[in-house]
Amino acid sequence: MELEFLGTGAGQPSKQRNVSSVALKLLDELNEIWLFDVGEATQHQILRTNIRLRKITKIFISHNHGDHIFGLPGLLSTRSFQGDVGPLTIYGPTGIEQFVKTALKVSRTKISYPIKYVVLSEPGLICEDKDFRVYTDQLEHRIPSFGFRVVESSHSGELLMDKLAKYHVPNGPLLGKLKRGEQVALADGTVLNGKDFLGPEKPGRIVTIIYDTRSTPSIARLAKNADVLVHESTFAGNEAKMAHNYYHSTAVEAAKVARKDNVKKLCLNHISARHMGAEAKKLEKQAQKFFPNTMLVNDFDRVNIPMKGSKE
Amino acid sequence: MELEFLGTGAGQPSKQRNVSSVALKLLDELNEIWLFDVGEATQHQILRTNIRLRKITKIFISHNHGDHIFGLPGLLSTRSFQGDVGPLTIYGPTGIEQFVKTALKVSRTKISYPIKYVVLSEPGLICEDKDFRVYTDQLEHRIPSFGFRVVESSHSGELLMDKLAKYHVPNGPLLGKLKRGEQVALADGTVLNGKDFLGPEKPGRIVTIIYDTRSTPSIARLAKNADVLVHESTFAGNEAKMAHNYYHSTAVEAAKVARKDNVKKLCLNHISARHMGAEAKKLEKQAQKFFPNTMLVNDFDRVNIPMKGSKE
Ligand SMILES: [Zn+2]
Ligand SMILES: [Zn+2]
Repeated sequence: MELEFLGTGAGQPSKQRNVSSVALKLLDELNEIWLFDVGEATQHQILRTNIRLRKITKIFISHNHGDHIFGLPGLLSTRSFQGDVGPLTIYGPTGIEQFVKTALKVSRTKISYPIKYVVLSEPGLICEDKDFRVYTDQLEHRIPSFGFRVVESSHSGELLMDKLAKYHVPNGPLLGKLKRGEQVALADGTVLNGKDFLGPEKPGRIVTIIYDTRSTPSIARLAKNADVLVHESTFAGNEAKMAHNYYHSTAVEAAKVARKDNVKKLCLNHISARHMGAEAKKLEKQAQKFFPNTMLVNDFDRVNIPMKGSKE
Repeated sequence: MELEFLGTGAGQPSKQRNVSSVALKLLDELNEIWLFDVGEATQHQILRTNIRLRKITKIFISHNHGDHIFGLPGLLSTRSFQGDVGPLTIYGPTGIEQFVKTALKVSRTKISYPIKYVVLSEPGLICEDKDFRVYTDQLEHRIPSFGFRVVESSHSGELLMDKLAKYHVPNGPLLGKLKRGEQVALADGTVLNGKDFLGPEKPGRIVTIIYDTRSTPSIARLAKNADVLVHESTFAGNEAKMAHNYYHSTAVEAAKVARKDNVKKLCLNHISARHMGAEAKKLEKQAQKFFPNTMLVNDFDRVNIPMKGSKE
């Protein structure tokens, strides 16, 4: 489970940062990659990574501003040329489907795989399988904007071999059943319930992605206990008023959320071209005063998200 | 007058070549820049040049395939952020206006300058002022595709000072009028006609841009006597059959047009990722057998187009 930042800039591309996109790589978990926003030239950025377009199965769009969506038609088209590719779902505000379909229609592009569109409107669960659930909530931007909370299911505890020893369970399928918490009957008639021989569950990981928004209470709900919080940081710590007026956040506002809501790691993202080089480092330092485990991300940065209890 | 190649690839971006765009820089002539096609990330390529978006006043779109148009919404949006920018005209096939307007509407982008859309359908003159005329004609691609011929007006001849000497015309406005070919009356009553004192006109320059097409007669009409012919070259010389089937051209077909139609310089463009590095050089060599002044262009190549009679 790893985040790979494909575009960490704000508004317009610059030589240093592309417009918004971040990949959540769930290769070990699902053999899938999920994208959060697809600014123009996201597919160009991907060319410089190991990401294969066919692995992208879900795309989440925070809001419809051009720097977050104009890369969609090109990425979807190029994915279509990659031989045998599976379906893809796009979660986003109203309008995304119209934008994509118009682009594909005008360009006479035939996409080789099914695209499903899910319109975001209400807060709540937007997708769920046995391993992951994704929640959304509305943020506060000039236009409707949504944050995302990806929650991994808990991992079941390990089989307690010491406790099990005296039953002399043979290696093989019976042990497998016990590991999955199922009931088994041994050769001597003894019935064991797997649940009695499992250690404590390991909680799953949580990743929260907050794109364009001013400071607003829903951020805390999405970010609570997150292993990684990716938060926009368009303005510097001393620009709170300007941030508010422009419907954006400061580095310090992001850090305060991280501190208050028991976040493990904060990634400052969506960095304005006004804050280049040393200026960007300043934003990071401002945030670190409130939340030390803060990292201001650059294009192509990768952030590993270790299992809870494992070493980073 | 200079061409700057912004994207010389075919179909999809690669690390070596972006998708299609070329700038015709008319800075000395009009203080304007015209773009031919705007593939995704054209604005990103422009970031690495001296081109300022505000100078782009006309955009010509050859056809609606995504690799030729998906950069339009982003480029138009970013141009809008550049302070006081003038109007812009987009010439292209039906559908371009719908694509751009949908992208701008969905992304809630307000463009600060007027955009005029001119739909290409018939062959002929599509824009004209005192210095330049642009002609189009239909090519032969899988979808409607148009070539462009940019014709500079002739430059009037120089004033023949030797011939004029005996009239003792004073320096000043009278000389200016004669230079412009007007009639003047001297102090002693003599009437002179400027036209009698001008050397031969210098013909203007001609630039022809041929994007996606198979070999077809309209190319010759557009390319006749061109100073520079930019011609797609998606396939190698020995792939004529495949080129025809895929509605594209070979390097050799481009060279034969250049030779037959009295072109001065041929730029091979729209190079497939199948032809990288040494393979691309092969295309150039194949073409040079038929037309020696052939250059296979790469992203960021610039090609000067000197006045006729001047040294290159
Ligand atoms: Zn943004
Ligand atoms: Zn093409």
